[in-house]
Amino acid sequence: MSTAAIPSQPRKSFGSDNHAAVHPAIIQAITDANSGDAVAYGADPWTERATSELKRLTGAAGKALLVLNGSGANILGLGLLLGRHEAVICAESAHINTDECGAAEQVLGTKLLTVPAPNGKLTPELIADRLAGRGDEHFAQPSVVSVTQSTEFGTCYSLAELAKIHDFCAANELRVYMDGARLANAAAYLDCTLADLAQHADVLSFGGTKNGAMGVEALVVMRAEDTASAPYLRKQYMQLISKMRYLGAQMSALLEDDLWLRNARHANAMARRLADGLAGIPGVSLAYPVESDAVFAQLERRHIEALQRDWMFHVWDEEAGIVRWMTAFNTREEDVDQFLADIAASARTFRSV
Amino acid sequence: MSTAAIPSQPRKSFGSDNHAAVHPAIIQAITDANSGDAVAYGADPWTERATSELKRLTGAAGKALLVLNGSGANILGLGLLLGRHEAVICAESAHINTDECGAAEQVLGTKLLTVPAPNGKLTPELIADRLAGRGDEHFAQPSVVSVTQSTEFGTCYSLAELAKIHDFCAANELRVYMDGARLANAAAYLDCTLADLAQHADVLSFGGTKNGAMGVEALVVMRAEDTASAPYLRKQYMQLISKMRYLGAQMSALLEDDLWLRNARHANAMARRLADGLAGIPGVSLAYPVESDAVFAQLERRHIEALQRDWMFHVWDEEAGIVRWMTAFNTREEDVDQFLADIAASARTFRSV
Amino acid sequence: MSTAAIPSQPRKSFGSDNHAAVHPAIIQAITDANSGDAVAYGADPWTERATSELKRLTGAAGKALLVLNGSGANILGLGLLLGRHEAVICAESAHINTDECGAAEQVLGTKLLTVPAPNGKLTPELIADRLAGRGDEHFAQPSVVSVTQSTEFGTCYSLAELAKIHDFCAANELRVYMDGARLANAAAYLDCTLADLAQHADVLSFGGTKNGAMGVEALVVMRAEDTASAPYLRKQYMQLISKMRYLGAQMSALLEDDLWLRNARHANAMARRLADGLAGIPGVSLAYPVESDAVFAQLERRHIEALQRDWMFHVWDEEAGIVRWMTAFNTREEDVDQFLADIAASARTFRSV
Amino acid sequence: MSTAAIPSQPRKSFGSDNHAAVHPAIIQAITDANSGDAVAYGADPWTERATSELKRLTGAAGKALLVLNGSGANILGLGLLLGRHEAVICAESAHINTDECGAAEQVLGTKLLTVPAPNGKLTPELIADRLAGRGDEHFAQPSVVSVTQSTEFGTCYSLAELAKIHDFCAANELRVYMDGARLANAAAYLDCTLADLAQHADVLSFGGTKNGAMGVEALVVMRAEDTASAPYLRKQYMQLISKMRYLGAQMSALLEDDLWLRNARHANAMARRLADGLAGIPGVSLAYPVESDAVFAQLERRHIEALQRDWMFHVWDEEAGIVRWMTAFNTREEDVDQFLADIAASARTFRSV
Repeated sequence: MSTAAIPSQPRKSFGSDNHAAVHPAIIQAITDANSGDAVAYGADPWTERATSELKRLTGAAGKALLVLNGSGANILGLGLLLGRHEAVICAESAHINTDECGAAEQVLGTKLLTVPAPNGKLTPELIADRLAGRGDEHFAQPSVVSVTQSTEFGTCYSLAELAKIHDFCAANELRVYMDGARLANAAAYLDCTLADLAQHADVLSFGGTKNGAMGVEALVVMRAEDTASAPYLRKQYMQLISKMRYLGAQMSALLEDDLWLRNARHANAMARRLADGLAGIPGVSLAYPVESDAVFAQLERRHIEALQRDWMFHVWDEEAGIVRWMTAFNTREEDVDQFLADIAASARTFRSV
Repeated sequence: MSTAAIPSQPRKSFGSDNHAAVHPAIIQAITDANSGDAVAYGADPWTERATSELKRLTGAAGKALLVLNGSGANILGLGLLLGRHEAVICAESAHINTDECGAAEQVLGTKLLTVPAPNGKLTPELIADRLAGRGDEHFAQPSVVSVTQSTEFGTCYSLAELAKIHDFCAANELRVYMDGARLANAAAYLDCTLADLAQHADVLSFGGTKNGAMGVEALVVMRAEDTASAPYLRKQYMQLISKMRYLGAQMSALLEDDLWLRNARHANAMARRLADGLAGIPGVSLAYPVESDAVFAQLERRHIEALQRDWMFHVWDEEAGIVRWMTAFNTREEDVDQFLADIAASARTFRSV
Repeated sequence: MSTAAIPSQPRKSFGSDNHAAVHPAIIQAITDANSGDAVAYGADPWTERATSELKRLTGAAGKALLVLNGSGANILGLGLLLGRHEAVICAESAHINTDECGAAEQVLGTKLLTVPAPNGKLTPELIADRLAGRGDEHFAQPSVVSVTQSTEFGTCYSLAELAKIHDFCAANELRVYMDGARLANAAAYLDCTLADLAQHADVLSFGGTKNGAMGVEALVVMRAEDTASAPYLRKQYMQLISKMRYLGAQMSALLEDDLWLRNARHANAMARRLADGLAGIPGVSLAYPVESDAVFAQLERRHIEALQRDWMFHVWDEEAGIVRWMTAFNTREEDVDQFLADIAASARTFRSV
Repeated sequence: MSTAAIPSQPRKSFGSDNHAAVHPAIIQAITDANSGDAVAYGADPWTERATSELKRLTGAAGKALLVLNGSGANILGLGLLLGRHEAVICAESAHINTDECGAAEQVLGTKLLTVPAPNGKLTPELIADRLAGRGDEHFAQPSVVSVTQSTEFGTCYSLAELAKIHDFCAANELRVYMDGARLANAAAYLDCTLADLAQHADVLSFGGTKNGAMGVEALVVMRAEDTASAPYLRKQYMQLISKMRYLGAQMSALLEDDLWLRNARHANAMARRLADGLAGIPGVSLAYPVESDAVFAQLERRHIEALQRDWMFHVWDEEAGIVRWMTAFNTREEDVDQFLADIAASARTFRSV
């Protein structure tokens, strides 16, 4: 994707849910935690509360760990499931394949066996395509399937789709890792619990940063027998900080009173509002179904350029003219409406030419 | 070291400078930064300000990067200097060797050629001892020397000692990495600038977390020609977060009005006060010179146990009866005095038996 | 590819040039070398003679090293060129991508940026497609282009094609690695010298094992400034044996009196004979141009099965019905003719149905 | 160790058992195997015969694999036993620590927790010293103990000593890897079977190259449940060659009629003869007990220099004046006697001064 233009006016960014500030309740929780001494490296009550609650919400019998960013969660999560020589099956569009600078190969020494996946979603059939070389020492041996929920294109696997993948994997000696950097948005869209989603994974991440936190992600290991190496790999992968209480405080605040769900619902609603508003605008079409906080739209190059003068967002596919518009927990209805008005205005200009 | 006892009363911890909360000015800076959107991954004004200032303070012609923790800084810093096959010379007591769960070997694939170093300090002679196998393909080939300033035993290299090491390294095709998790304490002790220290390294870290920050460390690359891989390795090593502005805000606040130096001076003074107070107490002796915020003392086992009932600290060497007492930016004179009173009282009890 | 059937009769294998025995001259050289003591690990006259001759034949100013197998040559060769964080651009069909069990990712920690390449051959345009994310820390950063000569489909880059790639790479800060497991076959086909080929690479391998040797490959580093880490990485990658004289003897024998070229010419001629003989057979067509010792043909599934009852060869693409027939230095005209007769006979059977 | 001097006369080398040529029976086996085609990568009868026999001789229920050199065997063997984050306990003098250029750290990403071990031999007590940090995420977590039999100093563990280590490991969740590059010499010295030794390991290597082969080592996995990743890791670690029949032929020949044992007995006897002959020579003393094919002796610097003018051997410890004299399967009594005569003559020269 091309670098986002930095507009001259401070309008709401549609560039990323990462551009948003931190939710006030989370800032408050950090401030509240800032009193007295606390044992370092996670043996503190804030971390304890957050991880217990994560286990409860996901129904995990294993372990929940807090980490520092999405790549950290992905690499650690895959590392817990991968044998020393094993490979990962994932969608070509998966974040671990396209956006982490090759961290999986570098840190895990694993090969990503990628699959072109419509809408960013794997299926048992697509996974089966990468199993041909099993048992032959010349071929990379997949043992983990990585699904992203919601996907990099803003789409969501239905619970039935996840169940099918999980069943297929269980029947084929494959484990399931779920990249849940935007798992909250999927739960909001599917109107399901985290446990409904987590039951279809062996290890999953649960993102906080894109959903209102400052910088915290959770990794949830569903089964006790998969947890043994988790603390050590987290340390080796540099995902443990000394003052863990501030990660614990962030995650606790996000989990309290379903703030995570309210934030995600709001962001999804804003994306929905944006998508609905595009309906009547000529020359703008949706590239993918809108099922979370992302709107992928296709429009003319000069139209994109006109909009980027005032609004911050990424062009996803230069050639196809596809842009990505992200909403966030703090996107307001008026931000969407103002953006829509500008899109429509530009569209009229071009049409009238 | 053994796990710190968690005392029943909330007295000041002497367990680690990491047990302290965050300095109010840094919490304030985080809160102040929490407004409006900001481009993610470091292209924000807070990060820009912090890294510019770090370059200015250290005199670096290369680059300053913010990272998430001490191990992250060490691994990234070494990674910038190490060829694919090369090894690191360090003190046996170095944090990278003893306290990072083997991260250097795991992530960098490098061998640590350790040297038993009195007081945790390397010398040209000690370094030279590990150069014997150079040019022979059967032996690990050292290319980087890692020094810790201040050391894991709370001692400091003098500027002259650093200069000697740096000269020796320059003359022997070795690069110098300086683990500066507590560089501020060294600058305070030596009454020198960061540039005075940085000139003797090729890459160095500058710790924030142990010195009042929530969770931020800087990596400074002195020469432009060593910076090319830095952003990519930082990403691969999972040391980049999306909402970097909050790292930038922390580091900026730490650098403003020499807060970093004032914090370090205070912590050092508290350690000095503690060490001085031990002078008259029978059965307690210093294990290392006190030159930063750490006091290593030797005392009887039962004495240690008695103190751990009320105070949190680590036993460093069970057999030798050596404990580590750390102060912090927020340790108060009365905390030290109360601790000293308890140490003295226990000492009297045992002596009177 | 599917496992080769093991036929009931000991007919010549068309399964792989690796199925052949060792050329008598090479066995003789091993036997001749088996006298007296020799310094281990390569400081012997046989190794010295082989590597000097390799440098002379390729025009290399750098270094030639003997290694143990093709993967060893590829991994070491790439390792010499790759910075710690860098990625490789290669054809999707490249051996390093499809047939080495993920060794490149595992040992080098590098990402392979693959390109679907018609006939297995890269072009500047195909390479350019993978340069989009350069300079963006989220994307893998390619620094090496790996070409295979002759390719996995038995095709050859012309010298002009190689020159274009090399020029493009030089202009785009990319280095060229040439996987020459079958470089001899390419030289024979193009009727050019090894130096003609080597000038278009920074590092290249020169295969011995598929061309009549028992087990030896050479790695040639064209420039002196790229050689520094070679001996150490070779050792770390377990490509150095103690009794190197027997590798040296093999390679020396292969280079003497152009045995390498004569072997390759013969194998190529047998593949040509086989391809020419297919011309008149109904239902059998060539899948790729025949430009080395490989014939890829497309035929009906039942036809393949009938042939595999008596002949050993691999099915390359089950779905498309593409098989790979390899010749070797010791394939005889009568082997080819007998095979052709069987292919024709089977073809007639099916057609007559 | 210093580079061996290359003497002007072709006398028998005492530099290494690797300096010897290949036993005629093994050359013959290679020649005999050189007929007709054979399936590549180990599915050939020679490899099958060798690996079956290795399983029989060691009593292994798991798997035997042929690899290319000692480092390959060690790295693969450790890789089979090590979890992704785990560390290895070994003697400071272990080959994996001192002579493999850091391959274990580079390829396995593991930390070697070394122990200064008298005579190169670990004990349960020495192993226990490295278990202090278990369960603490900051410390490297050992899961494998690597013993070398016979050791780098030519000493042997008794079967009782091995049993004690194995029992201790079993009771402490540690696995045992046995570096058996010279296992034959240990079996010969202890007058025991390979099974007697193998029962005390989880995975072990069995060296061929130092014992008369051209270049082949075996890795034996004792238990079936430890074999799953073996073929894949062997491929990734570049220890598989296409024409495996020539490895199989070498190993088969070595195992036939106990050639391995006869070779080792002879080499041991020659070392014994050398050691015994040193008894009366003034100024020369043994540095370690002589229990295999190595004699470590201590003598004056000028004495060493005088001998190196005519004889090839390594100085092991420059400072202490310790040299290593290795015998081999083809060292003759007259070689030893001539060497002893020269040692005695030199000794007289110095004494008479």
